[in-house]
Amino acid sequence: MSGSTLLFPVVGRPVTQVQAPAAFNPLFAACGVDAIVVPLEMPSEGVVRRVRDLLDSASDGGILVTVPYKKALLEAADRLSARAEAAGAVNSIRRNADGSLSGDLLDGIGFVAGLRAYGHEPQGRSALIVGAGGAGAAIGAALLESGVRRLSLFDRDAAVARALAARLQPLAQGADIVVLDALAGPGQDIVVNATPLGMREDDPLPFDPMTLAPATLVVEIIMAPARTRLLAVAAARGCPTHPGRPMLDHQLPAYLDFFAMPEVASEARARLDRGLAKEPSSETTP
Amino acid sequence: MSGSTLLFPVVGRPVTQVQAPAAFNPLFAACGVDAIVVPLEMPSEGVVRRVRDLLDSASDGGILVTVPYKKALLEAADRLSARAEAAGAVNSIRRNADGSLSGDLLDGIGFVAGLRAYGHEPQGRSALIVGAGGAGAAIGAALLESGVRRLSLFDRDAAVARALAARLQPLAQGADIVVLDALAGPGQDIVVNATPLGMREDDPLPFDPMTLAPATLVVEIIMAPARTRLLAVAAARGCPTHPGRPMLDHQLPAYLDFFAMPEVASEARARLDRGLAKEPSSETTP
Repeated sequence: MSGSTLLFPVVGRPVTQVQAPAAFNPLFAACGVDAIVVPLEMPSEGVVRRVRDLLDSASDGGILVTVPYKKALLEAADRLSARAEAAGAVNSIRRNADGSLSGDLLDGIGFVAGLRAYGHEPQGRSALIVGAGGAGAAIGAALLESGVRRLSLFDRDAAVARALAARLQPLAQGADIVVLDALAGPGQDIVVNATPLGMREDDPLPFDPMTLAPATLVVEIIMAPARTRLLAVAAARGCPTHPGRPMLDHQLPAYLDFFAMPEVASEARARLDRGLAKEPSSETTP
Repeated sequence: MSGSTLLFPVVGRPVTQVQAPAAFNPLFAACGVDAIVVPLEMPSEGVVRRVRDLLDSASDGGILVTVPYKKALLEAADRLSARAEAAGAVNSIRRNADGSLSGDLLDGIGFVAGLRAYGHEPQGRSALIVGAGGAGAAIGAALLESGVRRLSLFDRDAAVARALAARLQPLAQGADIVVLDALAGPGQDIVVNATPLGMREDDPLPFDPMTLAPATLVVEIIMAPARTRLLAVAAARGCPTHPGRPMLDHQLPAYLDFFAMPEVASEARARLDRGLAKEPSSETTP
Protein backbone atom coordinates (compact mmCIF):
# COMPACT_ATOMS: atom_id res chain seq x y z
CA MET A 1 0.00 0.00 0.00
CA SER A 2 1.31 3.40 -0.98
CA GLY A 3 0.02 6.74 -2.15
CA SER A 4 -0.16 5.28 -5.66
CA THR A 5 -2.24 2.24 -4.76
CA LEU A 6 -5.07 1.74 -7.23
CA LEU A 7 -8.43 1.03 -5.57
CA PHE A 8 -11.10 -1.28 -6.92
CA PRO A 9 -14.11 -0.83 -4.63
CA VAL A 10 -16.84 -3.47 -4.51
CA VAL A 11 -19.99 -1.36 -4.42
CA GLY A 12 -23.10 -2.86 -2.84
CA ARG A 13 -25.35 -2.80 0.20
CA PRO A 14 -24.51 -4.54 2.40
CA VAL A 15 -20.96 -5.57 1.51
CA THR A 16 -20.05 -7.63 4.57
CA GLN A 17 -20.56 -10.81 2.53
CA VAL A 18 -18.27 -9.91 -0.39
CA GLN A 19 -15.44 -12.30 -1.07
CA ALA A 20 -13.72 -10.30 -3.78
CA PRO A 21 -11.05 -8.71 -1.52
CA ALA A 22 -9.88 -12.17 -0.42
CA ALA A 23 -9.91 -13.41 -4.02
CA PHE A 24 -8.18 -10.49 -5.76
CA ASN A 25 -5.73 -9.06 -3.24
CA PRO A 26 -3.41 -12.08 -2.99
CA LEU A 27 -3.25 -12.07 -6.81
CA PHE A 28 -2.24 -8.41 -6.91
CA ALA A 29 0.36 -9.05 -4.22
CA ALA A 30 1.74 -12.10 -6.04
CA CYS A 31 2.06 -10.09 -9.26
CA GLY A 32 3.65 -7.09 -7.54
CA VAL A 33 0.74 -4.89 -8.65
CA ASP A 34 0.03 -1.94 -6.33
CA ALA A 35 -3.75 -2.35 -6.32
CA ILE A 36 -6.38 -3.44 -3.84
CA VAL A 37 -10.01 -4.50 -3.89
CA VAL A 38 -11.92 -2.92 -1.00
CA PRO A 39 -15.54 -3.26 0.10
CA LEU A 40 -17.56 -0.04 -0.21
CA GLU A 41 -21.07 -0.01 1.14
CA MET A 42 -23.10 2.68 -0.58
CA PRO A 43 -26.53 4.14 0.23
CA SER A 44 -29.06 3.74 -2.57
CA GLU A 45 -29.91 7.45 -2.65
CA GLY A 46 -27.85 8.97 -5.44
CA VAL A 47 -25.91 5.78 -6.08
CA VAL A 48 -25.34 6.65 -9.75
CA ARG A 49 -23.84 10.02 -8.82
CA ARG A 50 -21.76 8.46 -6.07
CA VAL A 51 -20.30 5.88 -8.42
CA ARG A 52 -19.58 8.38 -11.16
CA ASP A 53 -17.85 10.59 -8.58
CA LEU A 54 -15.80 7.65 -7.41
CA LEU A 55 -14.71 6.82 -10.95
CA ASP A 56 -13.50 10.44 -11.31
CA SER A 57 -10.75 9.71 -8.82
CA ALA A 58 -7.26 8.99 -10.11
CA SER A 59 -6.99 6.51 -7.21
CA ASP A 60 -9.82 4.43 -8.62
CA GLY A 61 -9.02 1.71 -11.16
CA GLY A 62 -12.64 0.69 -11.65
CA ILE A 63 -15.47 -0.72 -9.59
CA LEU A 64 -17.06 -4.09 -9.02
CA VAL A 65 -20.82 -4.02 -8.55
CA THR A 66 -22.78 -6.36 -6.35
CA VAL A 67 -26.37 -6.59 -5.09
CA PRO A 68 -28.57 -4.60 -5.07
CA TYR A 69 -27.01 -2.19 -7.59
CA LYS A 70 -26.43 -4.28 -10.73
CA LYS A 71 -29.51 -2.83 -12.40
CA ALA A 72 -29.37 0.69 -10.98
CA LEU A 73 -25.77 1.20 -12.09
CA LEU A 74 -26.52 0.51 -15.75
CA GLU A 75 -27.14 4.25 -15.81
CA ALA A 76 -23.69 5.07 -14.42
CA ALA A 77 -21.94 3.74 -17.53
CA ASP A 78 -21.69 5.73 -20.76
CA ARG A 79 -21.24 2.55 -22.78
CA LEU A 80 -22.46 -0.97 -22.17
CA SER A 81 -21.36 -4.31 -23.55
CA ALA A 82 -24.04 -6.10 -25.57
CA ARG A 83 -24.46 -8.68 -22.80
CA ALA A 84 -24.87 -6.00 -20.10
CA GLU A 85 -27.40 -4.25 -22.30
CA ALA A 86 -29.33 -7.47 -22.99
CA ALA A 87 -29.29 -8.65 -19.39
CA GLY A 88 -30.05 -5.16 -18.11
CA ALA A 89 -27.28 -5.22 -15.50
CA VAL A 90 -23.61 -4.43 -14.89
CA ASN A 91 -21.20 -5.94 -12.41
CA SER A 92 -18.14 -3.90 -13.39
CA ILE A 93 -17.44 -0.36 -14.57
CA ARG A 94 -14.13 1.13 -15.69
CA ARG A 95 -12.97 4.49 -16.97
CA ASN A 96 -11.57 4.39 -20.51
CA ALA A 97 -8.60 6.39 -21.77
CA ASP A 98 -11.00 8.90 -23.35
CA GLY A 99 -12.67 9.51 -19.98
CA SER A 100 -15.88 7.63 -20.79
CA LEU A 101 -17.21 4.90 -18.50
CA SER A 102 -17.74 1.36 -19.77
CA GLY A 103 -19.99 -1.14 -18.03
CA ASP A 104 -19.92 -4.89 -18.45
CA LEU A 105 -21.52 -8.00 -16.96
CA LEU A 106 -19.00 -10.74 -16.28
CA ASP A 107 -21.00 -13.24 -14.20
CA GLY A 108 -22.05 -15.18 -17.28
CA ILE A 109 -18.50 -15.13 -18.68
CA GLY A 110 -17.37 -16.73 -15.43
CA PHE A 111 -20.20 -19.24 -15.72
CA VAL A 112 -19.22 -20.36 -19.23
CA ALA A 113 -15.48 -20.34 -18.42
CA GLY A 114 -16.24 -22.46 -15.36
CA LEU A 115 -18.18 -24.98 -17.49
CA ARG A 116 -15.36 -25.16 -20.03
CA ALA A 117 -12.71 -25.60 -17.35
CA TYR A 118 -14.45 -28.84 -16.42
CA GLY A 119 -14.83 -30.02 -19.99
CA HIS A 120 -18.43 -28.93 -20.55
CA GLU A 121 -18.48 -27.05 -23.87
CA PRO A 122 -21.82 -25.30 -24.45
CA GLN A 123 -21.19 -24.44 -28.12
CA GLY A 124 -23.68 -26.25 -30.36
CA ARG A 125 -25.62 -27.64 -27.40
CA SER A 126 -29.13 -26.98 -26.14
CA ALA A 127 -29.46 -25.32 -22.78
CA LEU A 128 -32.37 -24.63 -20.45
CA ILE A 129 -32.23 -21.92 -17.78
CA VAL A 130 -34.73 -22.25 -14.96
CA GLY A 131 -35.33 -18.79 -13.48
CA ALA A 132 -35.31 -15.66 -15.64
CA GLY A 133 -34.17 -13.13 -13.02
CA GLY A 134 -30.80 -11.39 -12.85
CA ALA A 135 -28.73 -14.57 -12.71
CA GLY A 136 -30.69 -16.19 -15.52
CA ALA A 137 -30.26 -13.09 -17.68
CA ALA A 138 -26.47 -12.98 -17.18
CA ILE A 139 -26.11 -16.70 -17.88
CA GLY A 140 -28.45 -16.58 -20.85
CA ALA A 141 -26.47 -13.76 -22.47
CA ALA A 142 -23.18 -15.61 -21.96
CA LEU A 143 -24.55 -18.94 -23.21
CA LEU A 144 -25.76 -17.26 -26.40
CA GLU A 145 -22.35 -15.62 -26.84
CA SER A 146 -20.72 -19.02 -26.33
CA GLY A 147 -22.68 -20.37 -29.32
CA VAL A 148 -25.42 -22.60 -27.90
CA ARG A 149 -27.72 -24.01 -30.57
CA ARG A 150 -30.89 -23.46 -28.57
CA LEU A 151 -31.59 -21.54 -25.38
CA SER A 152 -34.76 -22.38 -23.50
CA LEU A 153 -36.05 -20.23 -20.67
CA PHE A 154 -38.47 -21.16 -17.93
CA ASP A 155 -39.79 -18.98 -15.14
CA ARG A 156 -42.81 -19.61 -12.95
CA ASP A 157 -43.84 -16.15 -14.16
CA ALA A 158 -44.01 -16.78 -17.91
CA ALA A 159 -44.09 -13.05 -18.67
CA VAL A 160 -40.67 -12.62 -17.05
CA ALA A 161 -39.27 -15.40 -19.23
CA ARG A 162 -40.81 -13.88 -22.36
CA ALA A 163 -39.40 -10.45 -21.54
CA LEU A 164 -35.92 -11.90 -21.05
CA ALA A 165 -36.20 -13.84 -24.32
CA ALA A 166 -36.94 -10.59 -26.12
CA ARG A 167 -34.02 -8.79 -24.48
CA LEU A 168 -31.63 -11.62 -25.34
CA GLN A 169 -32.66 -11.73 -28.99
CA PRO A 170 -29.85 -9.39 -30.18
CA LEU A 171 -27.30 -11.92 -28.89
CA ALA A 172 -28.90 -14.95 -30.53
CA GLN A 173 -26.40 -15.40 -33.42
CA GLY A 174 -28.87 -17.74 -35.11
CA ALA A 175 -29.69 -19.73 -31.98
CA ASP A 176 -33.29 -20.45 -31.16
CA ILE A 177 -34.59 -18.77 -28.02
CA VAL A 178 -37.55 -20.65 -26.67
CA VAL A 179 -39.84 -19.85 -23.76
CA LEU A 180 -41.19 -22.98 -22.07
CA ASP A 181 -44.62 -23.02 -20.51
CA ALA A 182 -43.87 -26.05 -18.41
CA LEU A 183 -40.78 -27.80 -17.16
CA ALA A 184 -41.46 -30.79 -19.29
CA GLY A 185 -39.16 -33.51 -20.21
CA PRO A 186 -35.95 -34.30 -21.91
CA GLY A 187 -34.33 -32.74 -24.97
CA GLN A 188 -31.82 -30.58 -23.09
CA ASP A 189 -28.05 -31.05 -23.04
CA ILE A 190 -27.61 -28.60 -20.16
CA VAL A 191 -30.06 -27.47 -17.48
CA VAL A 192 -29.13 -24.58 -15.17
CA ASN A 193 -30.85 -23.74 -11.90
CA ALA A 194 -30.87 -19.93 -11.86
CA THR A 195 -33.44 -19.68 -9.05
CA PRO A 196 -32.46 -19.27 -5.40
CA LEU A 197 -34.12 -22.62 -4.58
CA GLY A 198 -31.56 -24.84 -2.91
CA MET A 199 -29.88 -22.29 -0.69
CA ARG A 200 -32.04 -23.43 2.23
CA GLU A 201 -32.26 -27.03 3.29
CA ASP A 202 -36.05 -27.13 3.15
CA ASP A 203 -36.36 -25.51 -0.30
CA PRO A 204 -38.30 -27.55 -2.85
CA LEU A 205 -36.35 -28.71 -5.90
CA PRO A 206 -36.41 -26.05 -8.67
CA PHE A 207 -37.24 -28.87 -11.12
CA ASP A 208 -37.35 -32.64 -11.02
CA PRO A 209 -34.12 -34.22 -12.34
CA MET A 210 -35.99 -37.50 -12.85
CA THR A 211 -37.65 -35.94 -15.91
CA LEU A 212 -34.26 -35.38 -17.56
CA ALA A 213 -32.36 -37.65 -19.89
CA PRO A 214 -29.48 -39.25 -17.95
CA ALA A 215 -26.92 -37.50 -20.18
CA THR A 216 -28.18 -34.03 -19.25
CA LEU A 217 -25.64 -31.84 -17.41
CA VAL A 218 -27.27 -30.36 -14.30
CA VAL A 219 -25.73 -27.06 -13.24
CA GLU A 220 -26.03 -25.02 -10.05
CA ILE A 221 -24.86 -21.47 -9.38
CA ILE A 222 -25.59 -21.72 -5.67
CA MET A 223 -22.31 -21.83 -3.75
CA ALA A 224 -23.55 -22.66 -0.26
CA PRO A 225 -24.30 -25.46 0.15
CA ALA A 226 -21.72 -26.69 -2.38
CA ARG A 227 -23.80 -29.81 -2.98
CA THR A 228 -27.45 -28.86 -3.16
CA ARG A 229 -30.24 -31.39 -3.02
CA LEU A 230 -30.72 -30.83 -6.76
CA LEU A 231 -27.15 -31.90 -7.47
CA ALA A 232 -27.50 -34.92 -5.20
CA VAL A 233 -30.73 -36.08 -6.81
CA ALA A 234 -29.36 -35.44 -10.32
CA ALA A 235 -26.22 -37.44 -9.54
CA ALA A 236 -28.38 -40.28 -8.19
CA ARG A 237 -30.28 -40.16 -11.47
CA GLY A 238 -26.93 -40.64 -13.23
CA CYS A 239 -26.70 -37.10 -14.64
CA PRO A 240 -23.34 -35.30 -14.76
CA THR A 241 -23.38 -32.27 -12.44
CA HIS A 242 -21.53 -28.97 -12.09
CA PRO A 243 -21.60 -26.90 -8.84
CA GLY A 244 -21.76 -23.14 -8.26
CA ARG A 245 -18.24 -22.32 -7.21
CA PRO A 246 -16.46 -22.39 -10.61
CA MET A 247 -18.65 -19.51 -11.86
CA LEU A 248 -17.24 -17.23 -9.16
CA ASP A 249 -13.66 -18.46 -9.52
CA HIS A 250 -13.65 -18.03 -13.27
CA GLN A 251 -14.97 -14.47 -13.08
CA LEU A 252 -11.65 -13.37 -11.65
CA PRO A 253 -9.67 -13.46 -14.91
CA ALA A 254 -12.62 -11.90 -16.71
CA TYR A 255 -12.61 -8.95 -14.30
CA LEU A 256 -8.85 -8.57 -14.65
CA ASP A 257 -9.13 -8.58 -18.45
CA PHE A 258 -11.86 -5.94 -18.20
CA PHE A 259 -9.65 -3.79 -15.96
CA ALA A 260 -6.78 -4.17 -18.47
CA MET A 261 -4.49 -6.13 -16.15
CA PRO A 262 -3.48 -8.99 -18.45
CA GLU A 263 -0.57 -10.20 -16.32
CA VAL A 264 -2.71 -10.56 -13.23
CA ALA A 265 -5.38 -12.27 -15.35
CA SER A 266 -2.75 -14.79 -16.54
CA GLU A 267 -1.71 -15.47 -12.97
CA ALA A 268 -5.38 -15.96 -12.01
CA ARG A 269 -5.82 -18.45 -14.89
CA ALA A 270 -2.63 -20.27 -13.94
CA ARG A 271 -3.86 -20.62 -10.36
CA LEU A 272 -7.22 -21.92 -11.54
CA ASP A 273 -5.42 -24.47 -13.73
CA ARG A 274 -3.30 -25.61 -10.81
CA GLY A 275 -6.41 -25.86 -8.64
CA LEU A 276 -8.10 -27.99 -11.30
CA ALA A 277 -5.08 -30.27 -11.52
CA LYS A 278 -5.26 -30.76 -7.78
CA GLU A 279 -8.92 -31.63 -7.32
CA PRO A 280 -10.65 -32.29 -10.61
CA SER A 281 -13.40 -34.62 -9.55
CA SER A 282 -14.45 -33.14 -6.22
CA GLU A 283 -16.11 -30.13 -7.79
CA THR A 284 -17.76 -31.34 -10.95
CA THR A 285 -18.53 -34.63 -12.57
CA PRO A 286 -17.61 -35.19 -16.20
CA MET B 1 -9.29 -7.62 4.22
CA SER B 2 -12.88 -8.74 4.21
CA GLY B 3 -16.31 -7.41 3.39
CA SER B 4 -16.34 -5.75 6.82
CA THR B 5 -13.04 -3.92 6.42
CA LEU B 6 -13.35 -0.32 7.57
CA LEU B 7 -11.81 2.18 5.16
CA PHE B 8 -10.03 5.38 6.14
CA PRO B 9 -9.33 7.21 2.86
CA VAL B 10 -6.66 9.91 2.71
CA VAL B 11 -8.33 12.58 0.60
CA GLY B 12 -6.12 14.95 -1.37
CA ARG B 13 -4.84 15.84 -4.80
CA PRO B 14 -2.42 14.37 -5.64
CA VAL B 15 -2.08 11.55 -3.11
CA THR B 16 0.94 9.74 -4.51
CA GLN B 17 3.09 11.28 -1.78
CA VAL B 18 0.98 10.22 1.19
CA GLN B 19 2.69 8.10 3.81
CA ALA B 20 -0.35 7.39 5.98
CA PRO B 21 -1.11 3.92 4.53
CA ALA B 22 2.41 2.74 5.39
CA ALA B 23 2.14 4.28 8.88
CA PHE B 24 -1.34 3.09 9.87
CA ASN B 25 -1.84 -0.26 8.16
CA PRO B 26 0.87 -2.20 10.04
CA LEU B 27 -0.65 -0.88 13.28
CA PHE B 28 -4.13 -2.11 12.35
CA ALA B 29 -2.68 -5.47 11.37
CA ALA B 30 -0.68 -5.75 14.61
CA CYS B 31 -3.81 -4.99 16.64
CA GLY B 32 -6.01 -7.39 14.66
CA VAL B 33 -8.25 -4.50 13.60
CA ASP B 34 -9.99 -5.01 10.23
CA ALA B 35 -9.33 -1.50 8.92
CA ILE B 36 -7.19 0.05 6.23
CA VAL B 37 -5.96 3.51 5.28
CA VAL B 38 -6.15 3.99 1.50
CA PRO B 39 -5.15 6.93 -0.68
CA LEU B 40 -8.07 8.58 -2.48
CA GLU B 41 -7.32 11.29 -5.00
CA MET B 42 -10.31 13.57 -5.39
CA PRO B 43 -11.08 16.26 -7.98
CA SER B 44 -11.63 19.71 -6.47
CA GLU B 45 -15.00 20.17 -8.17
CA GLY B 46 -17.64 19.24 -5.62
CA VAL B 47 -15.11 17.99 -3.10
CA VAL B 48 -17.38 18.81 -0.14
CA ARG B 49 -20.22 16.77 -1.65
CA ARG B 50 -17.86 13.92 -2.52
CA VAL B 51 -16.51 13.74 1.01
CA ARG B 52 -19.94 13.91 2.62
CA ASP B 53 -21.08 11.11 0.27
CA LEU B 54 -18.06 9.05 1.25
CA LEU B 55 -18.77 9.49 4.95
CA ASP B 56 -22.31 8.19 4.32
CA SER B 57 -20.88 4.77 3.59
CA ALA B 58 -20.97 2.14 6.31
CA SER B 59 -17.58 1.01 4.96
CA ASP B 60 -16.02 4.34 5.84
CA GLY B 61 -14.59 4.82 9.31
CA GLY B 62 -13.58 8.43 8.71
CA ILE B 63 -11.27 10.37 6.43
CA LEU B 64 -7.84 11.91 6.64
CA VAL B 65 -7.46 15.17 4.74
CA THR B 66 -4.30 16.34 3.05
CA VAL B 67 -3.35 19.17 0.69
CA PRO B 68 -5.02 21.00 -0.96
CA TYR B 69 -8.32 20.32 0.82
CA LYS B 70 -7.68 21.19 4.48
CA LYS B 71 -9.45 24.53 4.12
CA ALA B 72 -12.12 23.52 1.61
CA LEU B 73 -13.28 20.60 3.76
CA LEU B 74 -14.04 22.78 6.80
CA GLU B 75 -17.45 23.02 5.14
CA ALA B 76 -17.88 19.24 5.01
CA ALA B 77 -18.02 18.96 8.81
CA ASP B 78 -21.13 19.79 10.83
CA ARG B 79 -19.05 20.45 13.93
CA LEU B 80 -15.47 21.65 14.31
CA SER B 81 -13.03 21.48 17.18
CA ALA B 82 -12.00 24.89 18.52
CA ARG B 83 -8.52 24.46 17.03
CA ALA B 84 -9.89 23.54 13.60
CA GLU B 85 -12.20 26.55 13.76
CA ALA B 86 -9.36 28.86 14.82
CA ALA B 87 -6.87 27.55 12.28
CA GLY B 88 -9.51 27.44 9.57
CA ALA B 89 -8.63 23.90 8.50
CA VAL B 90 -9.37 20.22 9.12
CA ASN B 91 -7.20 17.18 8.56
CA SER B 92 -9.66 14.57 9.80
CA ILE B 93 -13.42 14.06 9.69
CA ARG B 94 -15.46 11.33 11.33
CA ARG B 95 -19.14 10.44 11.56
CA ASN B 96 -20.52 10.52 15.10
CA ALA B 97 -23.07 8.11 16.53
CA ASP B 98 -25.83 10.69 15.96
CA GLY B 99 -24.94 10.87 12.25
CA SER B 100 -23.29 14.30 12.40
CA LEU B 101 -19.80 14.88 11.01
CA SER B 102 -17.01 16.19 13.25
CA GLY B 103 -13.88 17.82 11.88
CA ASP B 104 -10.61 18.26 13.71
CA LEU B 105 -7.06 19.42 13.04
CA LEU B 106 -4.47 17.11 14.51
CA ASP B 107 -1.21 18.36 12.97
CA GLY B 108 -0.56 20.69 15.86
CA ILE B 109 -1.42 18.00 18.40
CA GLY B 110 1.25 15.84 16.77
CA PHE B 111 3.63 18.77 16.85
CA VAL B 112 3.22 19.34 20.59
CA ALA B 113 3.25 15.60 21.37
CA GLY B 114 6.46 15.32 19.34
CA LEU B 115 8.07 18.14 21.33
CA ARG B 116 7.03 16.57 24.64
CA ALA B 117 8.30 13.13 23.60
CA TYR B 118 11.77 14.67 23.39
CA GLY B 119 11.48 16.52 26.67
CA HIS B 120 10.51 19.93 25.31
CA GLU B 121 7.49 21.08 27.34
CA PRO B 122 5.88 24.20 25.84
CA GLN B 123 3.62 24.96 28.81
CA GLY B 124 4.58 28.29 30.43
CA ARG B 125 7.15 29.04 27.71
CA SER B 126 7.29 31.73 25.05
CA ALA B 127 7.11 30.58 21.46
CA LEU B 128 7.59 32.27 18.10
CA ILE B 129 6.13 30.86 14.89
CA VAL B 130 7.71 32.11 11.68
CA GLY B 131 5.18 31.77 8.88
CA ALA B 132 1.45 32.30 9.48
CA GLY B 133 0.08 30.00 6.76
CA GLY B 134 -1.71 26.68 7.27
CA ALA B 135 1.12 25.02 9.20
CA GLY B 136 1.65 28.06 11.41
CA ALA B 137 -2.06 28.20 12.18
CA ALA B 138 -2.24 24.53 13.19
CA ILE B 139 0.88 24.80 15.35
CA GLY B 140 -0.22 28.09 16.89
CA ALA B 141 -3.57 26.64 17.92
CA ALA B 142 -1.93 23.59 19.50
CA LEU B 143 0.74 25.65 21.28
CA LEU B 144 -1.98 27.83 22.83
CA GLU B 145 -3.88 24.72 23.89
CA SER B 146 -0.68 23.35 25.43
CA GLY B 147 -0.48 26.43 27.65
CA VAL B 148 2.32 28.59 26.28
CA ARG B 149 2.74 31.86 28.15
CA ARG B 150 3.22 33.96 25.02
CA LEU B 151 2.76 33.17 21.35
CA SER B 152 4.49 35.44 18.85
CA LEU B 153 3.71 35.33 15.15
CA PHE B 154 5.79 36.59 12.28
CA ASP B 155 4.99 36.52 8.59
CA ARG B 156 6.63 38.50 5.80
CA ASP B 157 3.06 39.59 5.08
CA ALA B 158 2.17 41.26 8.41
CA ALA B 159 -1.55 41.29 7.56
CA VAL B 160 -1.53 37.48 7.38
CA ALA B 161 0.07 37.28 10.83
CA ARG B 162 -2.45 39.78 12.25
CA ALA B 163 -5.37 37.84 10.80
CA LEU B 164 -4.09 34.60 12.33
CA ALA B 165 -3.55 36.29 15.69
CA ALA B 166 -7.20 37.37 15.66
CA ARG B 167 -8.41 33.88 14.73
CA LEU B 168 -6.31 32.29 17.48
CA GLN B 169 -7.57 34.66 20.18
CA PRO B 170 -10.39 32.33 21.36
CA LEU B 171 -7.74 29.71 22.24
CA ALA B 172 -5.49 32.10 24.18
CA GLN B 173 -6.39 30.94 27.74
CA GLY B 174 -4.74 34.07 29.08
CA ALA B 175 -1.63 33.81 26.92
CA ASP B 176 -0.38 36.90 25.09
CA ILE B 177 -0.61 36.69 21.32
CA VAL B 178 1.86 39.07 19.75
CA VAL B 179 2.42 39.96 16.09
CA LEU B 180 6.04 40.85 15.37
CA ASP B 181 6.92 43.41 12.73
CA ALA B 182 10.48 42.18 12.43
CA LEU B 183 12.35 39.02 13.26
CA ALA B 184 14.31 40.76 15.95
CA GLY B 185 16.30 39.23 18.65
CA PRO B 186 16.14 37.04 21.67
CA GLY B 187 13.41 36.57 24.25
CA GLN B 188 11.96 33.34 22.84
CA ASP B 189 12.15 29.91 24.43
CA ILE B 190 11.00 28.15 21.26
CA VAL B 191 11.18 29.27 17.61
CA VAL B 192 9.38 27.26 14.95
CA ASN B 193 9.99 27.51 11.22
CA ALA B 194 6.52 27.15 9.70
CA THR B 195 7.58 28.41 6.27
CA PRO B 196 8.56 26.06 3.45
CA LEU B 197 12.06 27.57 3.40
CA GLY B 198 14.58 24.79 3.85
CA MET B 199 12.97 22.16 1.66
CA ARG B 200 15.30 23.11 -1.19
CA GLU B 201 19.03 23.23 -0.79
CA ASP B 202 19.34 26.78 -2.10
CA ASP B 203 16.54 28.24 0.04
CA PRO B 204 17.54 31.19 2.20
CA LEU B 205 17.27 30.69 5.97
CA PRO B 206 13.75 31.55 7.23
CA PHE B 207 15.46 33.52 10.03
CA ASP B 208 18.95 33.95 11.36
CA PRO B 209 19.67 31.66 14.34
CA MET B 210 22.60 33.88 15.28
CA THR B 211 20.11 36.43 16.61
CA LEU B 212 18.70 33.89 19.08
CA ALA B 213 19.75 33.26 22.65
CA PRO B 214 21.76 30.02 22.76
CA ALA B 215 19.12 28.38 24.96
CA THR B 216 16.38 28.85 22.35
CA LEU B 217 14.92 25.62 20.99
CA VAL B 218 14.88 25.75 17.17
CA VAL B 219 12.16 23.62 15.62
CA GLU B 220 11.56 22.48 12.06
CA ILE B 221 8.48 20.82 10.62
CA ILE B 222 10.20 20.06 7.31
CA MET B 223 10.84 16.34 7.03
CA ALA B 224 13.04 16.19 3.95
CA PRO B 225 15.82 16.99 4.38
CA ALA B 226 15.77 15.70 7.98
CA ARG B 227 18.56 18.13 8.86
CA THR B 228 17.87 21.48 7.21
CA ARG B 229 20.43 24.22 6.97
CA LEU B 230 18.51 26.07 9.70
CA LEU B 231 18.96 23.14 12.10
CA ALA B 232 22.64 22.86 11.22
CA VAL B 233 23.29 26.57 11.76
CA ALA B 234 21.25 26.62 14.98
CA ALA B 235 23.17 23.61 16.33
CA ALA B 236 26.45 25.33 15.46
CA ARG B 237 25.21 28.35 17.39
CA GLY B 238 24.70 25.99 20.35
CA CYS B 239 20.90 26.01 20.26
CA PRO B 240 18.97 22.80 20.99
CA THR B 241 17.09 21.64 17.87
CA HIS B 242 14.07 19.51 17.03
CA PRO B 243 13.44 18.13 13.51
CA GLY B 244 10.24 17.70 11.51
CA ARG B 245 9.66 13.97 11.72
CA PRO B 246 8.25 13.66 15.27
CA MET B 247 5.29 15.89 14.35
CA LEU B 248 4.16 13.34 11.77
CA ASP B 249 4.89 10.30 13.94
CA HIS B 250 3.01 11.72 16.91
CA GLN B 251 -0.07 12.52 14.87
CA LEU B 252 -0.77 8.81 14.55
CA PRO B 253 -2.09 8.26 18.09
CA ALA B 254 -4.03 11.53 17.83
CA TYR B 255 -5.78 10.31 14.67
CA LEU B 256 -6.53 6.96 16.30
CA ASP B 257 -8.00 8.70 19.35
CA PHE B 258 -10.11 10.85 17.06
CA PHE B 259 -11.37 7.76 15.22
CA ALA B 260 -12.21 6.13 18.58
CA MET B 261 -9.66 3.32 18.29
CA PRO B 262 -8.03 3.54 21.74
CA GLU B 263 -6.30 0.15 21.55
CA VAL B 264 -4.59 0.96 18.28
CA ALA B 265 -3.66 4.39 19.67
CA SER B 266 -2.02 2.68 22.65
CA GLU B 267 -0.06 0.40 20.34
CA ALA B 268 1.04 3.44 18.30
CA ARG B 269 2.21 5.19 21.48
CA ALA B 270 4.03 2.07 22.65
CA ARG B 271 5.83 1.85 19.31
CA LEU B 272 6.80 5.51 19.47
CA ASP B 273 8.16 4.93 22.99
CA ARG B 274 10.20 1.97 21.81
CA GLY B 275 11.47 4.00 18.86
CA LEU B 276 12.55 6.77 21.23
CA ALA B 277 14.35 4.28 23.44
CA LYS B 278 16.23 3.05 20.39
CA GLU B 279 17.47 6.31 18.91
CA PRO B 280 16.94 9.23 21.25
CA SER B 281 19.71 11.54 20.15
CA SER B 282 19.67 11.07 16.38
CA GLU B 283 16.41 12.93 15.94
CA THR B 284 16.40 15.76 18.40
CA THR B 285 18.83 17.39 20.78
CA PRO B 286 17.80 17.99 24.37
